[in-house]
Amino acid sequence: MSVEKTPNLILVYDIVDDRKRTKIADVCLDYGLDRIQYSAFVGWLIPAKQQELFTKIRRILGKSPGNVQLLPICADDWKKRRVIDQPDKG
Amino acid sequence: MSVEKTPNLILVYDIVDDRKRTKIADVCLDYGLDRIQYSAFVGWLIPAKQQELFTKIRRILGKSPGNVQLLPICADDWKKRRVIDQPDKG
Repeated sequence: MSVEKTPNLILVYDIVDDRKRTKIADVCLDYGLDRIQYSAFVGWLIPAKQQELFTKIRRILGKSPGNVQLLPICADDWKKRRVIDQPDKG
Repeated sequence: MSVEKTPNLILVYDIVDDRKRTKIADVCLDYGLDRIQYSAFVGWLIPAKQQELFTKIRRILGKSPGNVQLLPICADDWKKRRVIDQPDKG
């Protein structure tokens, strides 16, 4: 994700199937999203690319169980986010 | 969460310690948030309550490793969210 672009979306998922979860994570990274947590990504995509990504995720998931949420985030809301980030040094 | 209130926040976390993760999930539920995924909640809270909740989470987590993100979501963005919800019938 280019540094100067303030993220305009968050994508979070719960996916049961390991192989599909990995494939979905990979496609999120392919679209330049940043992984902020194990199952959460943020990034900046134009709406058409958001739709394209979501369609690909739907195709990968198929009929398997899972919950995927892609929420747009406006710049104001992004600025007001609250974060605790204490990496695991284990 | 009262039905007529459109959610105005999403809270997602990656927490290593099981006991702390459970405590944090409980406090999110105490604040009336809805659990949409294993580590993701949505709900409606005034900013002061968002801060209060986040302070409690910070206190529970202490120095332990973890990543917690609370993002406000405006009504327009909430309407534009994309969701796949295929429950695990396993």
